[in-house]
Amino acid sequence: MTRPSDYKMVVVVRTDLGMSVGKMVAQACHAAVAASEESKRTHTKHWRRWRDTGGRKVALEAESLEELEALARRAEELGIVNVLIEDAGHTEVPPGSVTCLGVGPDQAMRIDLVTGDLPLLK
Amino acid sequence: MTRPSDYKMVVVVRTDLGMSVGKMVAQACHAAVAASEESKRTHTKHWRRWRDTGGRKVALEAESLEELEALARRAEELGIVNVLIEDAGHTEVPPGSVTCLGVGPDQAMRIDLVTGDLPLLK
Repeated sequence: MTRPSDYKMVVVVRTDLGMSVGKMVAQACHAAVAASEESKRTHTKHWRRWRDTGGRKVALEAESLEELEALARRAEELGIVNVLIEDAGHTEVPPGSVTCLGVGPDQAMRIDLVTGDLPLLK
Repeated sequence: MTRPSDYKMVVVVRTDLGMSVGKMVAQACHAAVAASEESKRTHTKHWRRWRDTGGRKVALEAESLEELEALARRAEELGIVNVLIEDAGHTEVPPGSVTCLGVGPDQAMRIDLVTGDLPLLK
């Protein structure tokens, strides 16, 4: 059961780009650090609660750029931190490819309004 | 060529635990956020330079707990930020399993003294 006191960050990774595991990990780390930094600055109270309750992070998957952008818009409408990560494109994917999205940290119930229907990254 | 002005963070992920990709991504995100936070606090100048030059992150692999702990000791000896991540163990791995290691951010040349021999995470 998700309680109002539960906090999490979600990182949504695109699976349609054919990235290696190492590439996905590095891109997701960009999203996590960027979303944490932005949340700390703009949603300090939520950020502290998240950190102090274990800093939970969940990796989910999306299959297209359009899906990732729609999730970012939905988060924005709800006032939830969202950070799209563009790869510099030195390896594996074309320059400027959007590889993943960081959402939150925020209350898990709010995050689920954005990413609740997505499958776990396998 | 690595120049003294190059900065990076490395996340070393254990491949011997049989973690799913999603699990590896989430654990690596823990390492990246924790190492960034610690570096910001204790190595502020290096942290700023890293952030302002793109916040480069690289995912490497190790095959055992012993290897990860040896890397952490080596980083410690050199005064480089190092954070071992223990999983709460609700899924996939036994509680308290050390899953990955965040190193830096710091000058890439210094980081390479710790992780220069490790393969990229595939």
